[in-house]
Amino acid sequence: MSRMREDVTSSEMRHDWLADRWVIIAPQRTARPCDFDLVFDEPSGVGDCPFCCGHEAETPLAVASYPAISANRKKESCAEWSVRVVPNKFPAVNIPGTRPPMRYATHPASPVPTNGINLFKRRGLSGGHEVIVESPEHLYSISQLDPESTQTVFRAYRDRLRYWLTEREICYAVVFKNVGQDAGASLVHTHSQLIATDILPPDVQRAAERMQLFYEQENECLMCRMISDEVELGVRIVEQTPDFVAFCPFASRLPALITILPRQHQSQFEKLNDQELEQVSWLTHRTIRRLEKLYPAVAYNFVIQTAPSCRKDSASFHWRLELFPRLTKVAGFEWGSDCFINPLAPEDAARALRQAGV
Amino acid sequence: MSRMREDVTSSEMRHDWLADRWVIIAPQRTARPCDFDLVFDEPSGVGDCPFCCGHEAETPLAVASYPAISANRKKESCAEWSVRVVPNKFPAVNIPGTRPPMRYATHPASPVPTNGINLFKRRGLSGGHEVIVESPEHLYSISQLDPESTQTVFRAYRDRLRYWLTEREICYAVVFKNVGQDAGASLVHTHSQLIATDILPPDVQRAAERMQLFYEQENECLMCRMISDEVELGVRIVEQTPDFVAFCPFASRLPALITILPRQHQSQFEKLNDQELEQVSWLTHRTIRRLEKLYPAVAYNFVIQTAPSCRKDSASFHWRLELFPRLTKVAGFEWGSDCFINPLAPEDAARALRQAGV
Repeated sequence: MSRMREDVTSSEMRHDWLADRWVIIAPQRTARPCDFDLVFDEPSGVGDCPFCCGHEAETPLAVASYPAISANRKKESCAEWSVRVVPNKFPAVNIPGTRPPMRYATHPASPVPTNGINLFKRRGLSGGHEVIVESPEHLYSISQLDPESTQTVFRAYRDRLRYWLTEREICYAVVFKNVGQDAGASLVHTHSQLIATDILPPDVQRAAERMQLFYEQENECLMCRMISDEVELGVRIVEQTPDFVAFCPFASRLPALITILPRQHQSQFEKLNDQELEQVSWLTHRTIRRLEKLYPAVAYNFVIQTAPSCRKDSASFHWRLELFPRLTKVAGFEWGSDCFINPLAPEDAARALRQAGV
Repeated sequence: MSRMREDVTSSEMRHDWLADRWVIIAPQRTARPCDFDLVFDEPSGVGDCPFCCGHEAETPLAVASYPAISANRKKESCAEWSVRVVPNKFPAVNIPGTRPPMRYATHPASPVPTNGINLFKRRGLSGGHEVIVESPEHLYSISQLDPESTQTVFRAYRDRLRYWLTEREICYAVVFKNVGQDAGASLVHTHSQLIATDILPPDVQRAAERMQLFYEQENECLMCRMISDEVELGVRIVEQTPDFVAFCPFASRLPALITILPRQHQSQFEKLNDQELEQVSWLTHRTIRRLEKLYPAVAYNFVIQTAPSCRKDSASFHWRLELFPRLTKVAGFEWGSDCFINPLAPEDAARALRQAGV
């Protein structure tokens, strides 16, 4: 197959097989006028930052701590750790043992029909919510870390996912990162989060079901097939290592969205060995640097989706890291239709990312 | 049923029956610290705004124009119109007759398997994309219009929906509004948009299917049941008129999300009569003023979902107007799981909105 340029000069719809969802690729939309300047965040908050070294008492006690590598010691006072994992002080889920009484359970003020469909179904939500503080210094992007420290961060992801996904009550755990105000960050100091829950969120369940369905129909893993097609085609590839590949998916919902995948089938991120961790952390770091080269101080999210622990068909699950730069805003059409309008063709995004030297 | 206060002091999950999706209500999250200030947009762009009166030649020719009401004339030069509908110069869909050749059709550079599942499915997208300019003056919110002008805006929505939904090739049409940069607006001058397509977006199809399913199981319309339950309960009601009701839905994905519904079953917004238009435009205007009283210059979207014209079961569809204030950012967890964390319980939002005098 040739590396032919796939120009898109008019709107087209593309089907995201994994999510079973169509997106609109509309490159002509980029030409429209705008009253607003895209403002990128500058790092702030230094001095009273609870994640900085010396402020350890302002967070709950660490559940894991990774020692500083001596070569990277910059301040004597921060020499003890390079990565710290602490419980989130403001958890999105209820933490068993600490949860306050659920008042709604004793004051069920929403009508519950004695038969038929209940429009007011509610339930508790238990699990864990942790913060992975990625540096003792007040840095604002993981791209500012050196390769060894980045690898330590990924080791923390692996270890905490492994911890939570072997807990009895836990069904699902996800590591995610919010960088910049537009990506939902509230603190600038570089950090990630882990949420573990006793339920499986709808999109994750759907993705797991789709991967299983593909496997049943094609006798092959969906993501393995996708990797082989993308690598052969080349136009959407950003970068490859022997064991990993970064590319802009065919039906990207957002401009410059990037997926990083293990090239060999692997269901569980938490089973990565140290050599694989080194490669995937290196590739992620480079990919974020490419992105920041194109869009300085860009806000972004990334999410590591590993197989849920409560499904029997998890062998068909192929773990992935998804990187969502926040270059456009979700607008009314998207909220109303769940159909995203992406003004940057993934082929053009991938070409620009490849060309961005790092 | 009592108007008992439904306090939520810990996280809980709530099921959105219409979307068949769970959300996390996590009020304790509002206490967390933040390095960022919430910055609201100030109106700008006056002078070179293509939507201002006197600049009509900068937009395509109007497809509809509504005359100014004499009492509201402020400038002699803008006397001819109060609302103008023009084709979008940067359409998200291909406009039949104007579309450039689709190069992807002649350069299919993505691999297409001769049998089995196609991971690179694509198709064209045709329809219409219009802008409803809501005032000849450089206002930035529909709440700055007087009641008569607001009603004219809603008449334009009705007329354009009616036009598109009787076009043969069109399956779906939606009116939506983006106000403020955080809501995806690129121009500040108050305006809405209409997109009509020859396909049904996934969320709209799902909503239509869910409404039909509810009807089949309960022999009653889902939204009619919801209105009757919400009105009886009262805790989530914002305001009512004889024919319409505004409330914060039980399983709101975003803080202070508001739905406005006709109290009597109606599938098609475009069939509203003038008296109904007057009421719904008045209620929407008041609701936005309440929201702006609580959160000055807040960014928001609204979307009018009317029955698609290509489904046979559209009688079970109940049209709705959904108002999405953009007070929080969609972050990594949401992108990865499609499970939203809403830090403001809808009962608390509704109480605050009721108490905001307008």
